[in-house]
Amino acid sequence: MENGTFTVTAKLFVENRLRLVNMLKNKIEAGSIILLKGGIKQNRYNTDSMDLPFRQESYFFWTFGVHESDCFGAIDIDSGKSFLFPPRLHPDYAIWQGSINNEEWYKKKYEVDEVHFNDKNTINEVLTNLHAKQLLLLKADNSDSGEILEPPTIDGLKNVPCNTSILYPIMAELRVFKTDHELNVMRYVCKVASEAHKAIMKSVKPGMYEYQLESLFRHYCYYHGGCRHLAYTCIASSGCNSAILHYGHENAPNMKKIIDGDLCLFDMGPEYNCYASDITTTFPCNGKFTEKQKIIYNAVLAANTEVFKAAKPGIRWNKMHMLAERIILSHLRDAGILTGDLEDMMEARMGAVFMPHGLGHFMGLDVHDCGGYLGDAEHRSTFPGLKALRTTRVLQERMVITIEPGCYFIDMLLDAALNDPIQSKFIVKEKLNGFRSFGGVRIEDDVIIWSHGNERMSNVPRTVNEIEQFMSGR
Amino acid sequence: MENGTFTVTAKLFVENRLRLVNMLKNKIEAGSIILLKGGIKQNRYNTDSMDLPFRQESYFFWTFGVHESDCFGAIDIDSGKSFLFPPRLHPDYAIWQGSINNEEWYKKKYEVDEVHFNDKNTINEVLTNLHAKQLLLLKADNSDSGEILEPPTIDGLKNVPCNTSILYPIMAELRVFKTDHELNVMRYVCKVASEAHKAIMKSVKPGMYEYQLESLFRHYCYYHGGCRHLAYTCIASSGCNSAILHYGHENAPNMKKIIDGDLCLFDMGPEYNCYASDITTTFPCNGKFTEKQKIIYNAVLAANTEVFKAAKPGIRWNKMHMLAERIILSHLRDAGILTGDLEDMMEARMGAVFMPHGLGHFMGLDVHDCGGYLGDAEHRSTFPGLKALRTTRVLQERMVITIEPGCYFIDMLLDAALNDPIQSKFIVKEKLNGFRSFGGVRIEDDVIIWSHGNERMSNVPRTVNEIEQFMSGR
Repeated sequence: MENGTFTVTAKLFVENRLRLVNMLKNKIEAGSIILLKGGIKQNRYNTDSMDLPFRQESYFFWTFGVHESDCFGAIDIDSGKSFLFPPRLHPDYAIWQGSINNEEWYKKKYEVDEVHFNDKNTINEVLTNLHAKQLLLLKADNSDSGEILEPPTIDGLKNVPCNTSILYPIMAELRVFKTDHELNVMRYVCKVASEAHKAIMKSVKPGMYEYQLESLFRHYCYYHGGCRHLAYTCIASSGCNSAILHYGHENAPNMKKIIDGDLCLFDMGPEYNCYASDITTTFPCNGKFTEKQKIIYNAVLAANTEVFKAAKPGIRWNKMHMLAERIILSHLRDAGILTGDLEDMMEARMGAVFMPHGLGHFMGLDVHDCGGYLGDAEHRSTFPGLKALRTTRVLQERMVITIEPGCYFIDMLLDAALNDPIQSKFIVKEKLNGFRSFGGVRIEDDVIIWSHGNERMSNVPRTVNEIEQFMSGR
Repeated sequence: MENGTFTVTAKLFVENRLRLVNMLKNKIEAGSIILLKGGIKQNRYNTDSMDLPFRQESYFFWTFGVHESDCFGAIDIDSGKSFLFPPRLHPDYAIWQGSINNEEWYKKKYEVDEVHFNDKNTINEVLTNLHAKQLLLLKADNSDSGEILEPPTIDGLKNVPCNTSILYPIMAELRVFKTDHELNVMRYVCKVASEAHKAIMKSVKPGMYEYQLESLFRHYCYYHGGCRHLAYTCIASSGCNSAILHYGHENAPNMKKIIDGDLCLFDMGPEYNCYASDITTTFPCNGKFTEKQKIIYNAVLAANTEVFKAAKPGIRWNKMHMLAERIILSHLRDAGILTGDLEDMMEARMGAVFMPHGLGHFMGLDVHDCGGYLGDAEHRSTFPGLKALRTTRVLQERMVITIEPGCYFIDMLLDAALNDPIQSKFIVKEKLNGFRSFGGVRIEDDVIIWSHGNERMSNVPRTVNEIEQFMSGR
């Protein structure tokens, strides 16, 4: 992209490949070749093309930075040489899809060592010439969705043994730690997302529909930031919908009219060059917080601020989740909604009544990025709230993680707590009932962990005063 | 949707089901049950949810109008009774995704006779109670993409014979002819698309990037029209890119800067309630046609206008394609680019040198809608241009079809024609070379075929004067 958008160079991916080779070199038998398959262009069901936008598979993109569909790529670990195998396009492509680039064009654009169009036996021949003894294929688990990226199959490769276990943990682990190149892209997309959120805050008015703000957000990100794709479906919730954590999907598609007095909870982020952003702003649609809104908002903001300060290398993420819970619970106690000893509340998992989701997740080429349960991660907890954590790892420099505490009034969870003999004794029922249908608050930032102090890539008005002042300028 | 958007009622789908039952009743053995499977919510590769927007499969949507994912539906042909089987949602859905609707809610919303959550053996039990003798399953070919929608498989259905051949041609044929309910939705989405195209014409300026106009278009359609999804990837081409017929995809993503003097060719359309629109406007980015641009534009406009008049029930679509070719060729001859006898040129397939695509296609729940090669269709031609036709059928009332003649200067095709001993003798080479890198023109309308005169659902400034006047008001 041009027009003041950010230029991503092939160096980002050259460095990623180098990191990958260095990680494997001397640790693996000679003649090992990495073979990766990029995403396949697909139609919507059985329809006739043109309707499903193609987005490259993230592991392949991390390695080669290639936007084109239907490619393979290989790396010879002994020599470090990289190979790209784009599809050989039918000559008619020039009529329908645009100019057909030659192998030299790909080589230059993606700074790989060799490019061969993927004819019937091409990959086999290259592997034979490299005297491949072992193929390293990617079979990638996703510890959040449980989905598996299956390793590629290639005709006639029967003679080379394939290993599908070595590559995944190494690549996923490398993806957890972002390079300077990657961080620059992520800073850019977070800036675009922040500016778009601010544009929404300037535009929102009672009487508008939630989806109109979603539309404005998408437009801002694309028109001004060159971000064609979203990192995830927009959550543009208002009023009681803000207590639906993943609102905005096809069954709840941001369709409510925004009513005077509603709090807006907008969790929206574009991706740029496949790198995600993920920001949540919560603010009153009319620009002025009520006293009740201030109580909950300040509880969540305090949690966000304290976690940002405390989240240092060496600290386990679960601890940060508990810290956020503790702060929110103490605010709710100060407000008279809860009563009793804070540590007893924590023990009774009261935190998860108001914040059933995890405090945050890794972010990168996927908005919920990989690697959360690798390395020094603890097993996924079975406790409410904690079981929703997308990572339990000890923080380290160059991890990019979201900090997104929230406090919601979800009838189903409140009723369950009121019916629980232990939890109910912490609840001041009449006071709590005054917050039924309040909705919820979430304040989400995108953060790089550094030992000298974390870096907040998102940048939007956050305190009650900042928000009211910013929105008064409408 | 509300906010001045169009309200689609369940009646549309009740009528569709009735048409389907009437088509099959008394023609098929007693105890036949239609069983359809809706679209399955999918993740992007192996990622963690939230990133691939769900869009219902079109045949299922045509029958039930259901937006929710992971449903089955059935129709008992003997009684005409309809059954919907939504998934039984986990109680935690209420925390993450929103309120869980009961069976009564679905029944009322979609006006089906029975709703049963799809537990382990639910569908089997219902089929057993209906004394099902035969299941009609959908195995749908797509004559454009070659893709096949595979019939559903359900555990433990081994005892009921399944037929996968009866349903497809009948359903596809019914989809070809639009009901009043359907036409009202299509009129609405075409209106939104037309207004959005007009907004683009008012906004475009040299120096902007193509993708910015795409962004504006998408925003207009969603913000003002409630259209969350596009019917296809936006083609926002300018200058020489307008000769790339399906520009705009991931390898050519509308990234060029628009230069003073460029012609813009914008082929863009949203969908509303899954019904597509598909409109192309061509206009000068600076609001003023050059003489050269006028020649080509008027050639294509004449083709568009004449086809609109001539496309009547009883006329085969191939004839209309040839008519468009003939008009464009005669204009190119008048302009001195071609020379010789018009019928000889047609014989030599000169039309396809300048218009390699088909004149138009059916439109409905898919932008390239089904049924183009059913019924009285002729076999797909092997001749250039004609082979790209998405239908060869005789026109009938209530068909919705695009009329989209075009004229492009595509180097590869021009060079081939100049190297062809027969085609080259029609070409005035020096004159033609003056149009190299001109790009192309396409003028596309969405039309309902009526015997008393066709109805153009798209409505944008079309003549040179109309466009220049409209754009001068910027």
